[in-house]
Amino acid sequence: MPRPSGRDAQTLRPVEIIRPFTKYAEGSVLIACGDTRVLCTASIEDKVPPFLKGQGRGWVTAEYGMLPRSTQERMPREAAKGKIGGRTHEIQRLIGRSLRAAVDLEALGERTVWIDCDVLQADGGTRTASITGACIALADALQGLLQRGVLTHNPWRHWVAAVSVGIREDEAILDLDYAEDSTAEVDMNVVMTDDGRFVEVQGTAEGAAFSAAQMADMLLLARRGIDRLIARQKSEFPHWP
Amino acid sequence: MPRPSGRDAQTLRPVEIIRPFTKYAEGSVLIACGDTRVLCTASIEDKVPPFLKGQGRGWVTAEYGMLPRSTQERMPREAAKGKIGGRTHEIQRLIGRSLRAAVDLEALGERTVWIDCDVLQADGGTRTASITGACIALADALQGLLQRGVLTHNPWRHWVAAVSVGIREDEAILDLDYAEDSTAEVDMNVVMTDDGRFVEVQGTAEGAAFSAAQMADMLLLARRGIDRLIARQKSEFPHWP
Amino acid sequence: MPRPSGRDAQTLRPVEIIRPFTKYAEGSVLIACGDTRVLCTASIEDKVPPFLKGQGRGWVTAEYGMLPRSTQERMPREAAKGKIGGRTHEIQRLIGRSLRAAVDLEALGERTVWIDCDVLQADGGTRTASITGACIALADALQGLLQRGVLTHNPWRHWVAAVSVGIREDEAILDLDYAEDSTAEVDMNVVMTDDGRFVEVQGTAEGAAFSAAQMADMLLLARRGIDRLIARQKSEFPHWP
Amino acid sequence: MPRPSGRDAQTLRPVEIIRPFTKYAEGSVLIACGDTRVLCTASIEDKVPPFLKGQGRGWVTAEYGMLPRSTQERMPREAAKGKIGGRTHEIQRLIGRSLRAAVDLEALGERTVWIDCDVLQADGGTRTASITGACIALADALQGLLQRGVLTHNPWRHWVAAVSVGIREDEAILDLDYAEDSTAEVDMNVVMTDDGRFVEVQGTAEGAAFSAAQMADMLLLARRGIDRLIARQKSEFPHWP
Amino acid sequence: MPRPSGRDAQTLRPVEIIRPFTKYAEGSVLIACGDTRVLCTASIEDKVPPFLKGQGRGWVTAEYGMLPRSTQERMPREAAKGKIGGRTHEIQRLIGRSLRAAVDLEALGERTVWIDCDVLQADGGTRTASITGACIALADALQGLLQRGVLTHNPWRHWVAAVSVGIREDEAILDLDYAEDSTAEVDMNVVMTDDGRFVEVQGTAEGAAFSAAQMADMLLLARRGIDRLIARQKSEFPHWP
Amino acid sequence: MPRPSGRDAQTLRPVEIIRPFTKYAEGSVLIACGDTRVLCTASIEDKVPPFLKGQGRGWVTAEYGMLPRSTQERMPREAAKGKIGGRTHEIQRLIGRSLRAAVDLEALGERTVWIDCDVLQADGGTRTASITGACIALADALQGLLQRGVLTHNPWRHWVAAVSVGIREDEAILDLDYAEDSTAEVDMNVVMTDDGRFVEVQGTAEGAAFSAAQMADMLLLARRGIDRLIARQKSEFPHWP
Repeated sequence: MPRPSGRDAQTLRPVEIIRPFTKYAEGSVLIACGDTRVLCTASIEDKVPPFLKGQGRGWVTAEYGMLPRSTQERMPREAAKGKIGGRTHEIQRLIGRSLRAAVDLEALGERTVWIDCDVLQADGGTRTASITGACIALADALQGLLQRGVLTHNPWRHWVAAVSVGIREDEAILDLDYAEDSTAEVDMNVVMTDDGRFVEVQGTAEGAAFSAAQMADMLLLARRGIDRLIARQKSEFPHWP
Repeated sequence: MPRPSGRDAQTLRPVEIIRPFTKYAEGSVLIACGDTRVLCTASIEDKVPPFLKGQGRGWVTAEYGMLPRSTQERMPREAAKGKIGGRTHEIQRLIGRSLRAAVDLEALGERTVWIDCDVLQADGGTRTASITGACIALADALQGLLQRGVLTHNPWRHWVAAVSVGIREDEAILDLDYAEDSTAEVDMNVVMTDDGRFVEVQGTAEGAAFSAAQMADMLLLARRGIDRLIARQKSEFPHWP
Repeated sequence: MPRPSGRDAQTLRPVEIIRPFTKYAEGSVLIACGDTRVLCTASIEDKVPPFLKGQGRGWVTAEYGMLPRSTQERMPREAAKGKIGGRTHEIQRLIGRSLRAAVDLEALGERTVWIDCDVLQADGGTRTASITGACIALADALQGLLQRGVLTHNPWRHWVAAVSVGIREDEAILDLDYAEDSTAEVDMNVVMTDDGRFVEVQGTAEGAAFSAAQMADMLLLARRGIDRLIARQKSEFPHWP
Repeated sequence: MPRPSGRDAQTLRPVEIIRPFTKYAEGSVLIACGDTRVLCTASIEDKVPPFLKGQGRGWVTAEYGMLPRSTQERMPREAAKGKIGGRTHEIQRLIGRSLRAAVDLEALGERTVWIDCDVLQADGGTRTASITGACIALADALQGLLQRGVLTHNPWRHWVAAVSVGIREDEAILDLDYAEDSTAEVDMNVVMTDDGRFVEVQGTAEGAAFSAAQMADMLLLARRGIDRLIARQKSEFPHWP
Repeated sequence: MPRPSGRDAQTLRPVEIIRPFTKYAEGSVLIACGDTRVLCTASIEDKVPPFLKGQGRGWVTAEYGMLPRSTQERMPREAAKGKIGGRTHEIQRLIGRSLRAAVDLEALGERTVWIDCDVLQADGGTRTASITGACIALADALQGLLQRGVLTHNPWRHWVAAVSVGIREDEAILDLDYAEDSTAEVDMNVVMTDDGRFVEVQGTAEGAAFSAAQMADMLLLARRGIDRLIARQKSEFPHWP
Repeated sequence: MPRPSGRDAQTLRPVEIIRPFTKYAEGSVLIACGDTRVLCTASIEDKVPPFLKGQGRGWVTAEYGMLPRSTQERMPREAAKGKIGGRTHEIQRLIGRSLRAAVDLEALGERTVWIDCDVLQADGGTRTASITGACIALADALQGLLQRGVLTHNPWRHWVAAVSVGIREDEAILDLDYAEDSTAEVDMNVVMTDDGRFVEVQGTAEGAAFSAAQMADMLLLARRGIDRLIARQKSEFPHWP
């Protein structure tokens, strides 16, 4: 059975990067993975949260939102509901943890990078597109600190990118769009570094549980997809290590 | 004294319209007025709020938000603060009232149009750009209803557009950007229809109060600016009445 | 067509002032405009909000509420709902801005005047009655600072008063009560100083938009009404400049 | 040691009743007990809360608030804080329970009486003044139902009034004002019916616990005070049973 | 008519104490009064709330919660509802005031004891069981301060315990379980010290008001019950004064 | 380097089950995994959430909380803070998804099982202990439906249990306690069924990312631990399939 999009099991959706997309943020990236489009910004703040004060280390934290009509049906605005839902919480914690793997927080010094990922259009994989795009915005923000001489050497540790994989009709597939995501038996989000190590693995069986063999297949696919995404990230920063 | 932007007192900033900007909404418009950029969507819902139920009339309502890094300093997200601030409330009520003047609510039938205006980049005049852009998104949404035969004749009454005017060094100026907005003595938002009538006039003296003559100057400037904005709106819909 | 109240188009409702109405506040005024009755208090606090700290300037801010049974139908309490609605936000911002035009904030020094306007009975025009009454409470509070020697000269700049005007059956009318307010085609709130300048103009077309000529008529009526209201304010402070 | 007010231990503060105080509520009473002034309204709603639906019984519920400047120091508004504090909750539950003793809820039929007690000026005893005043507002509301023929016989069971008692320098005293309330060792609020029975007794030792003998003294004083308050209530309704 | 439980009017339910129940808290007590089971912990914090800062006195404060399935029907979680209800507020204020009578706050020094009472299973009398159990947890926490030499002499003033009494079929009964509590005409919670004085008395007539004689009967029963509860408390601390 | 607890890398902490622990819930289990103790209840409700109405399928949902003093430092109560934090959201979504794998939701019919997991004492692994314990509570609740004849055959699909694994000094270890959890480089929670398939895998690198080989080691350890936990679950239900 072909995938709804006609892609084969191992093919990523086309990725586009517009950078900078807006003019104020220290880093501002519009990433499109197929029809999923996320605006990722990185903002530098010259202080750290209370629990880190006085330790000489920096912090990276993330917030995530979806515009009300980024989806097929209009979603109520979380600001209007007066609270952030469980899914949003989960995603913004995931993005924050993932991007902290990209930077040497000691070398960053006592400053916070605020990552904002706002979904303009959602067609599956918004959290993984957010991580992949925000990593570029983060790099732009750090480059700014280097260029202004605020930092004297680059605190960069790793490029970090993310992709979803899943099981559909017993076959592992890469980079699910919404049509696939809502019917796949298994949905797994994988975040990896440029040296092929895992930062996060979050796999969920929606219908039937999955076997160890299926897990191995999915991790392999994820690895291939992430390698290509990281190549794309690096092409934006040709002179970086 | 020249304006910071070099524009003369009576010149609008360049206006750009991208339409559709996203794929799900019944109407989706990215409007740029200079460096101010707002994504305006119109979503159709086949029911009305409780206070209108059973009266055969429709409703148009609006919500407004700013992305955290649409501004020079990152603003905390209203969803994270758990409530919508006074300024946001004021603006979304203004947008809703303004767009209700564009449509014959009886002819719309028992359905609601949800207008969402999300500011991607803010350089003054976000509320007026929202109204001008959202009016086009609204027209798109209605056109869809006409094309699908849900409506048999067009409930359109007026094109509605908005602009800010102000007093700067005792002179009336048109379409203030952020640098002017934050230093002007008077700030007035004017919403008008295509037959040159007022829908809303909201003038505020931040420093010194303003005279009746200054008020007349500002209203005249606003009229000229809005005429040009409405011409721009109409050019998107050449076959509409 | 006569007005429901029998008043002619240019007549204000009777105004009554009770002062002081309660004993703790530095200024405490009960203002009645016809059947609309608002308790306005002014409270002095010896500090300013964070954004003004260390600048040597003072601040005037306002809060507004309606008692649950100030209206024909009992309204739910905003405290019970756990949030302040859009209309309340809009009104308290309007009151605050209006009263800041009455005082030289530099001369006030680093202190805040809190204005509280609580509607005991509502028959239209609660926001304009709030402004007119609160201006007297503010004067009382300043007089107290002068009498106690905290201020050595009076930071008063202008008496500020407000009134509503509207269009009813194509005629401009002054000082709408609830029966008129809910049926008028246009509703405009005007705030002016004692030298005949505008502080705020907020006009809204509920049904049909209004013409420039109608606007001019309304502003003229408003001017006449406010002149009388300011005369009433001044009569309470015969020895003030 | 004389009391700060000069009253002797067994003397109530002067009580004044203005009725009706506002024009919309079915019952509207301004009660003054010395310098404590509370506006009490009763509003009829033709339905009951979900837990009573279909049982043919009515309900009486209460809400309580203090205006921000009813006190010596301005108190933040609970609506602005976004939640109702513990003290307010406690008081509105007390008022509701107390007034349900005044009415035969079966005979009231499936309707709710909403009691609103808003403190305009606070000098101790605001919750007891609220109960005493609201009972009159409740009677007014029921009288309206009788006069309009909605009820054919009076569901009234008892006049209900309340007073505070306390221990000050080892002596029981009646009707504490703020100066006494904040220094008394014991503070007790007593709610009784016109046949001398208790509806509520809430005694709290702030400093030292109190003996059974002191309790007996306080209850006796409370009884005397409440008898006088109920006589005052009855004088407003000379033709009631 | 016998009581549903078969107990006679003057009999307490069996009381069991497990201590310590959990390992981290400075005091941790599981108290069972019949089928009512409450986990009471006392936690020491080395600072006081702002209103007490710099006065050299300590503070005792309490929070109370019910697990969702501590009751026959599952109750929604207050954390999920986003606010604490009126009943919870009332109870936690009661527990805090009651336990402050147990300790000499001057001798405690500038530290706060946080009391947490969490109901694991509810069969009536959860607030009184909370007070009786938390008093033991508080003693454990103070004993810890004495043993570690933080305090050099014991700030203990009184054992404090609580019980409910009520009127059922015109007879006073002691220690109501849920079946009785929900049908009793009167419900009274009494908190007393080990020298037979009252800390709190809160009596509420749910149906018919109660007479002075009934009140006296209830207070007598409460006294007897509390004497036995305090004996039980003291048996846990045989070497305390 | 030995583990702080002295366990070897592959040893689970001792597991104890008390069942039923409270008397009202349809299922009520106290599970202890070492010093971590969680009270898990299952409550049956005879309706489903709106999004499932009329489809003939059931639902399993979960809520999670920690008592304030379940931890070494007292944690503020989420009910008092007025909102549920991100971590709690994440955990309760995880528990719900995991337990939905245990039951055939079609066979359950239109009813909801509410799972409540309340941590009485926390020493690492509270979310995995919650899943393992709640699965037994769920089985008890279903057994009740079978015994009462509400269900005629058992909708049970799988026993589901969970355990944490991690990397500590480059070695994979099983079932981390708090001392290990807070220092481990990697923390992974694994949920599996009784046929050795994965329901959830959530791995997070706190410091350094982890390799594919380390991932394989951890999954193997998790498998072994879960096999033993499921054997323990089954021993409670010897007659189940």
